[in-house]
Amino acid sequence: MTSSCEYCQLKQGYGDLMWESKYWLIFLAPSQRYLGTCVVAQKKGCKDLSEVETKEWVEFGLIVKKLEESLRTIFNPTLFNWSCFKNATFRGPNPKPEVHWHFIPRYKEEVSFGGLKFKDPDFGYIPQPISRELPPDVQKNLKKKIETQLFK
Amino acid sequence: MTSSCEYCQLKQGYGDLMWESKYWLIFLAPSQRYLGTCVVAQKKGCKDLSEVETKEWVEFGLIVKKLEESLRTIFNPTLFNWSCFKNATFRGPNPKPEVHWHFIPRYKEEVSFGGLKFKDPDFGYIPQPISRELPPDVQKNLKKKIETQLFK
Repeated sequence: MTSSCEYCQLKQGYGDLMWESKYWLIFLAPSQRYLGTCVVAQKKGCKDLSEVETKEWVEFGLIVKKLEESLRTIFNPTLFNWSCFKNATFRGPNPKPEVHWHFIPRYKEEVSFGGLKFKDPDFGYIPQPISRELPPDVQKNLKKKIETQLFK
Repeated sequence: MTSSCEYCQLKQGYGDLMWESKYWLIFLAPSQRYLGTCVVAQKKGCKDLSEVETKEWVEFGLIVKKLEESLRTIFNPTLFNWSCFKNATFRGPNPKPEVHWHFIPRYKEEVSFGGLKFKDPDFGYIPQPISRELPPDVQKNLKKKIETQLFK
């Protein structure tokens, strides 16, 4: 693997920016193996979660609620996986870890979007860092759909 | 796999209780493939992170700090992985998801404890749900060592 982030699978940063709060940014992730996968990145860019301040945790809790509720309304996933790993940056000689969360909706049943089918091939197990990029117009429409729900 | 929790790999609950705060419990995980692996379980037992209240997030932030700093003092890991997945409970017919965090220290260099060597075989990649149980006396001493640091 050569990606700079294990779940993002990309050199495109964290993806397409959808939402900006005081301390966090919400991106639609470039890989949509699990439909609705997002990245929540800390704006300050700390190395470890222990550097995250109380006011940032409080806002993060509100973002978790907003994202889970938005996705539930749109695609009704069975559950949500959250992780802050930062492993991939340590594969090279000059690691630059930055606090960011992978938000991965998981589906017991197949869902459809933009004429494509999404079956969660790893349901019940840890999400796999295998990339699935969508056609640009589908990715754009997905961003719009989630954004609209986030801003409601 | 038949475990009730992917990283815990067990039917022994979350492991050995080391610390109790108002809203969270810290356990030493039964599997120590990554030395110092702990579970931070929400006492209220919510299904999703969106049900976690602000006061619980605030305390969780303090626990993250306490755990990362304690482990850094004891074994100096290279980084820490955090995840809230809840996948394994969905393998059976009556899933009972409960909010709990996997705290997994990751090591670039091999570390030793209790006469055993711990080389992180997956460094730079996502942690694998492969069990490594320690001899009971080593597990007990590890618990004591982390507990002592947590209570400092």
